[in-house]
Amino acid sequence: MTHSILAELPALAPWHTAERAQALQARLNALTKPLGALGRLEALALRLGQILGTDAPQLRHPQVLVCAADHGVAAAGVSAYPSAVTAQMVLNFLAGGAAVSVLARQHALALNVVDCGVAHDFAPHAQLIVAKTTRGSANPLHDLALTAQQRDAALRAGQRIVQGLPGNAVLLGEMGIGNTSVAALLLARLGQLDIADCVGSGTGLDAAGVAHKTAVLGAVLQRHPAQAQATVAEQALAALSAFGGAEIATLAGAALQAASQRRVVVVDGFIASAAVLVAACLNPAVLQACVFAHQSAERGHALMLQAIERIGGDMPGVDTRPLLALDLRLGEGSGAALAWPLLQSACTLLAEMATFAGAGVSERLAS
Amino acid sequence: MTHSILAELPALAPWHTAERAQALQARLNALTKPLGALGRLEALALRLGQILGTDAPQLRHPQVLVCAADHGVAAAGVSAYPSAVTAQMVLNFLAGGAAVSVLARQHALALNVVDCGVAHDFAPHAQLIVAKTTRGSANPLHDLALTAQQRDAALRAGQRIVQGLPGNAVLLGEMGIGNTSVAALLLARLGQLDIADCVGSGTGLDAAGVAHKTAVLGAVLQRHPAQAQATVAEQALAALSAFGGAEIATLAGAALQAASQRRVVVVDGFIASAAVLVAACLNPAVLQACVFAHQSAERGHALMLQAIERIGGDMPGVDTRPLLALDLRLGEGSGAALAWPLLQSACTLLAEMATFAGAGVSERLAS
Repeated sequence: MTHSILAELPALAPWHTAERAQALQARLNALTKPLGALGRLEALALRLGQILGTDAPQLRHPQVLVCAADHGVAAAGVSAYPSAVTAQMVLNFLAGGAAVSVLARQHALALNVVDCGVAHDFAPHAQLIVAKTTRGSANPLHDLALTAQQRDAALRAGQRIVQGLPGNAVLLGEMGIGNTSVAALLLARLGQLDIADCVGSGTGLDAAGVAHKTAVLGAVLQRHPAQAQATVAEQALAALSAFGGAEIATLAGAALQAASQRRVVVVDGFIASAAVLVAACLNPAVLQACVFAHQSAERGHALMLQAIERIGGDMPGVDTRPLLALDLRLGEGSGAALAWPLLQSACTLLAEMATFAGAGVSERLAS
Repeated sequence: MTHSILAELPALAPWHTAERAQALQARLNALTKPLGALGRLEALALRLGQILGTDAPQLRHPQVLVCAADHGVAAAGVSAYPSAVTAQMVLNFLAGGAAVSVLARQHALALNVVDCGVAHDFAPHAQLIVAKTTRGSANPLHDLALTAQQRDAALRAGQRIVQGLPGNAVLLGEMGIGNTSVAALLLARLGQLDIADCVGSGTGLDAAGVAHKTAVLGAVLQRHPAQAQATVAEQALAALSAFGGAEIATLAGAALQAASQRRVVVVDGFIASAAVLVAACLNPAVLQACVFAHQSAERGHALMLQAIERIGGDMPGVDTRPLLALDLRLGEGSGAALAWPLLQSACTLLAEMATFAGAGVSERLAS
């Protein structure tokens, strides 16, 4: 099996340097606070400096990408909501009434809604990007969710969309009834985990609903067995085709493109993390750019982050610990938007705090 | 022992109503998201609505209070920094170079620096409130840290300062070399805990420094034994006099006053929480107004929150779980300022999100 798409993916190499780390750490240590007293904000400032390649990182024109698609697996009754909600919520994003719309306004984040594969045709809108590669994926109980062509087109769309956006930070969000099922399938296959450990209540299934969802997804995995001889990248492409979805493939392409341009990638919850899992299988160096925003209440998310961490291995500048843990289970990029002020704080503290010498503050006593 | 100050404390009664809770919950459930999908932000919106007494809470003119004082216990070598740093940092707050100065600018929070008892006289400054009740407390190894008069004056100062501030939210921060020692003493006495469990590294003590600090504070506790017959409120007043400090007493008075006016009280880390512990001993109803912003990396903070939770008992509308856990150990109100956008988000989501009916989004399927 040859995958020409692999040759098309953007070049992406490790960029972490010890010199940059040293310069940033020296700056942090000179600021008027006890050593390390800003805790994880200091680690965040170090990472942002490495990603943006500067000792004085500044975030510019942040872009939320809310990628939406429908999923054939929803026909198997794996969600608490009907598929029609995907299109309805796209309209709600555009009308400004969804959670991510409100949070984007609060934090002056540009909101870009992408129709990656919704089973509905939308009227043109200034904030809507149409990059349809399907009108809802096929049901993976019977078929490949996405053909190889659809999958590759979605990966390319993600790259192209990011190329067209300004700024140096991209926040990954999504909408798609059925996509916690798709993310659970990707996690089980690419993380080599039992599907029962990957399945959660999604938008609000009860125990019987979760049991049904688990049974359906187990059957899907059996229908599409793993290929024994495949590389990690080939496995990821095969899984993306088998399970979908168009929004996850688009987000994976977007993450790879953003990282290749050394933009900061702010990763929302379970489904956005699944896209990053796929992207990391295609090129682990993408993880250098990723800031995980929020620990989702969706059951599989902790395992998802562990699977991503294993792929990152000991690459410098990878940190899969989410900044927030507020029991959200909404998606849309809502967790990424909520974490955004913390990234701004990390940069602003580094830039604007006085130094001990500059402010005439005494240094610590010899111990 | 009579404590006339108890009669002067503001009136403060439970305000939680089931009707308000029901109205706010109904509003949250009507918004275009799965039930409960905004997680702890929903609980936060409910609390803010109860505190502000409205189904449509809006935060106005938030005020950071950074209360500063020096501490006689610092002479016993319990801090990694010299006492001169307290005054130097006050000047740094006013010059705009401290972490809380930067964060207050980022989030448009008014910054009020209060000289509660610094061993230095400051030139007048628009952001400086002089409410000195001491020029550094006495060393509690030998004396009461604060006389009853000084303590009561500091409690009254906190009330008076909040009375003079606009807005409906107060963020509690502090500065004072030696004040993690004072907070640990208050926790050990009022939480009835072993001092060794309450002592941490403060601004950065090594293991030997922590051991010395623990020994010093153990001796302080022996010097000022608990009174067997005292009420909880009397114990709190006695502890505040024995151990200090002026900034903690001022913050306790500020918290009580703010709560009595149904302002939101955003509580920073270990020392601000110690002030709330004292305030809660004086009147547990203060806890209805308190939003705990940040889980500090300082060792005793988790125990402090548990002690506060025990005082709250089963009073409705009390929640001691911090919003953030970023390993900060800085104080100044930095954790409160970092959490502030989450309070804004809770209000804004409640106010601006569309409803299922309004946006034409389908409700969940029957299960």
